[in-house]
Amino acid sequence: MTSRLFSFIGGNTGPWRVTSARAVAGEPIAQTARVLVVPDLVADASSTPGWVLRGITSNERYVVRSEKDQLLAKQQGLGRPEATCAALIPIRKSPAWWALTQDERRAIFEEQSHHTRIGLHYLPAIARRLHHCRDLSGSEPFDFLTWFEFAPENEDSFNHMLVELRASPEWGYVEREVDIRLVRD
Amino acid sequence: MTSRLFSFIGGNTGPWRVTSARAVAGEPIAQTARVLVVPDLVADASSTPGWVLRGITSNERYVVRSEKDQLLAKQQGLGRPEATCAALIPIRKSPAWWALTQDERRAIFEEQSHHTRIGLHYLPAIARRLHHCRDLSGSEPFDFLTWFEFAPENEDSFNHMLVELRASPEWGYVEREVDIRLVRD
Repeated sequence: MTSRLFSFIGGNTGPWRVTSARAVAGEPIAQTARVLVVPDLVADASSTPGWVLRGITSNERYVVRSEKDQLLAKQQGLGRPEATCAALIPIRKSPAWWALTQDERRAIFEEQSHHTRIGLHYLPAIARRLHHCRDLSGSEPFDFLTWFEFAPENEDSFNHMLVELRASPEWGYVEREVDIRLVRD
Repeated sequence: MTSRLFSFIGGNTGPWRVTSARAVAGEPIAQTARVLVVPDLVADASSTPGWVLRGITSNERYVVRSEKDQLLAKQQGLGRPEATCAALIPIRKSPAWWALTQDERRAIFEEQSHHTRIGLHYLPAIARRLHHCRDLSGSEPFDFLTWFEFAPENEDSFNHMLVELRASPEWGYVEREVDIRLVRD
């Protein structure tokens, strides 16, 4: 069975070398040399040199059928040989976001912020996997961890996508965001 | 801080005495004398006489603002002195349900099955708390645990509500359901 649970371990091991780790909003995260991605739940032991972030893949919460069909037709998987760049972007949204109802969240996410429409524009160059943290334990430091992979020549367009998303009304509900960039070596 | 995590321990202790535990769909659950509700995550140790079911309260996934406002205006909390009857109903939905998109699930949940409208009809007599299990670990035996409390004179209407819900199109996606009834003594 494929794991839905993933742990991202910031420390001294793993194939992904950290090139930068910047707090976009809220508290930063400890600087580490490398990140190891493990398809399992790893406890945050005191022996861990840096940090452990944990998340679980789940069903989609906002896309409608027409959007999902477009995503499925265009998106590519992780692990492409040419995709030697990655980004790990942990995000926490505010209590005000979680107090909204489904229709209110959908309206901000897509009708106002065009989150899926923006993302679609950058497919298939950017591959991604979204992990949910909030319902894992009720006390995780972030709500979402998104892992992105792309080839070096697509880094500019990846950055452009983030500029678009961060300028959207949805990002008014982001109270903590860290942007960790990595290369595989 | 109020816990979002709850464990339901089927065993020989706790204020709630089990009066029946019936499999409505799929595999039954081990019979136990009592259920203890703990606002914390409890591991399923081999020393546990019966079972441990775990879930986490979360944001609502389907209600729209007008429905939420009606729910908030009518619903009452758990722990009312007169509510000496309870039901614990663990449910697992099929992979087909989880493969649907948000708009498809909402259409089945409310426009076709009137889940919230049916529930509203039985407020404030029936109090409830919904717990999500699916994103807790990826290997929980159920997707949802709903805990209901009501006074003995409302047992008939509680049963009637379940008949209505179980006859709805949404229940075509329920592959496992157990109905555990309890009294407080």
